[in-house]
Amino acid sequence: MITSKQIIDCLDKVRSGSPLVHNITNYVVMNNTANALLAIGASPVMAHAINEVEDMAGIASSLVINMGTLSDNWVEAMLKAGKKANERGIPIVFDPVGVGATPYRTETAKSIIETCNPSVIRGNASEIMALCNTNVKTKGVDSTASSDSALESAKALANDTGAIVVISGQDDFITDGKQVITTSNGLPLMTKVTGMGCTSTAICGAFVGANEDLLLATASAMAIMGLAGEMAAEKAEGPGTLQLHFLDALYLVDNATINANLKINHETV
Amino acid sequence: MITSKQIIDCLDKVRSGSPLVHNITNYVVMNNTANALLAIGASPVMAHAINEVEDMAGIASSLVINMGTLSDNWVEAMLKAGKKANERGIPIVFDPVGVGATPYRTETAKSIIETCNPSVIRGNASEIMALCNTNVKTKGVDSTASSDSALESAKALANDTGAIVVISGQDDFITDGKQVITTSNGLPLMTKVTGMGCTSTAICGAFVGANEDLLLATASAMAIMGLAGEMAAEKAEGPGTLQLHFLDALYLVDNATINANLKINHETV
Amino acid sequence: MITSKQIIDCLDKVRSGSPLVHNITNYVVMNNTANALLAIGASPVMAHAINEVEDMAGIASSLVINMGTLSDNWVEAMLKAGKKANERGIPIVFDPVGVGATPYRTETAKSIIETCNPSVIRGNASEIMALCNTNVKTKGVDSTASSDSALESAKALANDTGAIVVISGQDDFITDGKQVITTSNGLPLMTKVTGMGCTSTAICGAFVGANEDLLLATASAMAIMGLAGEMAAEKAEGPGTLQLHFLDALYLVDNATINANLKINHETV
Repeated sequence: MITSKQIIDCLDKVRSGSPLVHNITNYVVMNNTANALLAIGASPVMAHAINEVEDMAGIASSLVINMGTLSDNWVEAMLKAGKKANERGIPIVFDPVGVGATPYRTETAKSIIETCNPSVIRGNASEIMALCNTNVKTKGVDSTASSDSALESAKALANDTGAIVVISGQDDFITDGKQVITTSNGLPLMTKVTGMGCTSTAICGAFVGANEDLLLATASAMAIMGLAGEMAAEKAEGPGTLQLHFLDALYLVDNATINANLKINHETV
Repeated sequence: MITSKQIIDCLDKVRSGSPLVHNITNYVVMNNTANALLAIGASPVMAHAINEVEDMAGIASSLVINMGTLSDNWVEAMLKAGKKANERGIPIVFDPVGVGATPYRTETAKSIIETCNPSVIRGNASEIMALCNTNVKTKGVDSTASSDSALESAKALANDTGAIVVISGQDDFITDGKQVITTSNGLPLMTKVTGMGCTSTAICGAFVGANEDLLLATASAMAIMGLAGEMAAEKAEGPGTLQLHFLDALYLVDNATINANLKINHETV
Repeated sequence: MITSKQIIDCLDKVRSGSPLVHNITNYVVMNNTANALLAIGASPVMAHAINEVEDMAGIASSLVINMGTLSDNWVEAMLKAGKKANERGIPIVFDPVGVGATPYRTETAKSIIETCNPSVIRGNASEIMALCNTNVKTKGVDSTASSDSALESAKALANDTGAIVVISGQDDFITDGKQVITTSNGLPLMTKVTGMGCTSTAICGAFVGANEDLLLATASAMAIMGLAGEMAAEKAEGPGTLQLHFLDALYLVDNATINANLKINHETV
């Protein structure tokens, strides 16, 4: 069983440690994810130049690789930064945005996983299934499958790669192939804000950069995302205002809220 | 005459069809336009790599080309995606941001129009006049001319290219060279939010991706933009809060609002 | 002594002159800084293509160079635009984001200063110290030093380069090496919004583009930033809502607010 106290401890370590999270991410969400990282208490840096990614990964607590608006130069930088992160033993969180939508995305995602050995892979159901060669229809960057239907793929991917695999959706599943943690906070309106998945990935980067138990840290990140979404929904009138109240909520979420509202489940397979 | 019901039907088709809109757009507005597309009910994807633009255009319902922060690599991708869209017969909406401000922009805009045969071209008055070689002062990406003064240029451009041409401004004009639809919703504060024009273009992309009558679809998109701006203004205190309430309004705009507030006029020349 | 009236006059010139500010800036903040420039009354343009930066700098009132997400192509464009700005005698504002964090950033910052002769250099304490080769720990793009501790570096940098140097922080220091203006408006929550420093830089670009006394213009820009932050804080509940109310405040800030709340000090060394 995972307790509220464990989630709170993980969050406290982010806020007190203020990990430097190096992001090589997409143009659409750079602003949001930097703001989300600041709001949760981390220190974000966005840097993608081939000339400096190793130096930046060399001082970071974790590396986030997000292939949303990928192109060859950026992929080269991702691989270089990833190798440096591996050398230093800092965790990498990988977001295979839109994998399965085009052959280029599928090849790139596989090459990043092989070369960089991510500690965490987070995607929506379609993306996780595409990484497992499961036959799934994709539609740009949006999922067409339910999280449930992707759980077996996630476990297989975790076992194959050694990474913790996260499927985000109505319920989020976090698995290392043996254990499955389910977090059930959050709400559907969050899917109407672009890059909420990418923000999850960045927040995972903050949590694994500040905590040693990566499975617990990842589950904590996903739980806090959902709880912050619920807090934001109380103030929001639509997806626009939700986005801003969500950043407020990441900044304001406290022990009382976590204790009162956390919905988490832990199973060992 | 165009009725509220026709606008409502066009909007319903966006919301029920959730068209995949492939955007090759500028860095400034990627986040806004993705959010606007999600809010209106479409499914946005941003992808510009030469390695995948054809594949992405190959599964999309429409393609939006916006040259706001253009550079050679991006233009190459725009042309490639445009050719694929032509092959498939899906509509292209083109936004010639800042055309006329530099020779590079003017040449690029003309080359995109020639190569890609856009179904819709949307710009402010200065931009539309610049595309017609009308002598007009430009100031970066902002218009220095009134929409009225650009209407003859818009008709000529429509007749030359076969595209529907939109001039956005206090009144918006939508013309295929023979008919002119005027939408008069919206408010001046919207010009104080960066990328509102680019957002119009993206929303046009959603409407033409989900509807067959492209002139009506484009007019509907512009009408909904203005109506959503008016809804947002009731809640906003300045351009910052307007931006977010505007996204809420795109999500919330309903038949009653359209019936009550639509200002549209239709003339055949 | 600097009076409220002087600050108000500088702001009035921005609003009445609506200077075209050419920005070559980073991906994270493009949207924010464009919005901030619109809100304060300037006309922003973002353009970085090597094919057009000279033409764009050729029609602008000022040039803002921000190296936040730098890469070689962009640096080349920065240098080219900078030379053109020098030729035309328009002011350049330079933001050496993250200088000191990697050797690439340090070399690039020095090369931009040498080649472009900026009129204003704005950074946080760590960045200003790094430009002076002062031994300082850096952490990505966030400062680890207090503004006070960087003041001697700022004066030395101003004397070496001929630029006005701004250290932003709890107090902001603006110095030409002989005089030091201190502005003390603003609040700590602003550091939880990404790119607030970059926004300061852009706003400095608007003020020096519309005013002749560059030291006074720069101090006015920093004062208005702080005052707008305080106005926004009255409405905000966290960093997310602060960001939007801040844009509203830039648009709404008026003489009464400046007269009532300005905290400024002027010393000649």
